Amino acid sequence: MTFANVGTLGVQPGKREELIAILTRSNPELKSAGCLAYEVGVSEEAPDTVFVAELWESVDAHQASLQLPSVRAAIAEAVPLLTGEMDGFRFIVAGSPLRD
Amino acid sequence: MTFANVGTLGVQPGKREELIAILTRSNPELKSAGCLAYEVGVSEEAPDTVFVAELWESVDAHQASLQLPSVRAAIAEAVPLLTGEMDGFRFIVAGSPLRD
Repeated sequence: MTFANVGTLGVQPGKREELIAILTRSNPELKSAGCLAYEVGVSEEAPDTVFVAELWESVDAHQASLQLPSVRAAIAEAVPLLTGEMDGFRFIVAGSPLRD
Repeated sequence: MTFANVGTLGVQPGKREELIAILTRSNPELKSAGCLAYEVGVSEEAPDTVFVAELWESVDAHQASLQLPSVRAAIAEAVPLLTGEMDGFRFIVAGSPLRD
């Protein structure tokens, strides 16, 4: 069952672009690991926040991806840029009006 | 610029499946209107909540879609099922590690 993980990451002032560069760095391993979408974004209304919306083939695929060396390295690189403020939610996809 | 709209909808007890049926009803007009993804979901931890994660070609495409007769009809059908509790966030996509 497709799993969605969407949330916000608080980022140290002035470090937003650096965090976005880490999170958007091309990583073909993610697709192999079952990542269906991984959109990283920003909002004028929250300049010290980075937004992430992920879709995965399953909860387990997402969980397993956190052990990939490339993902662990990206997390290690990102953590010093974060404030620790996080919000968001996780859900299991029930359907879409774009599909029959 | 791709626009993301993700959020939660509080739903009247016992009405979750009815709301999901409305929100996931196949609607080819959405794609024509610039909808890139529209995932509707649930979580065991929040039984009276429906989750939505949408991607649109632009803020304007999303805004314009709200005037489509099919979308207005779906909203009118959904509103009586809602509690009015809503949460979520909107952002502009900066990139994805799934793309080069």
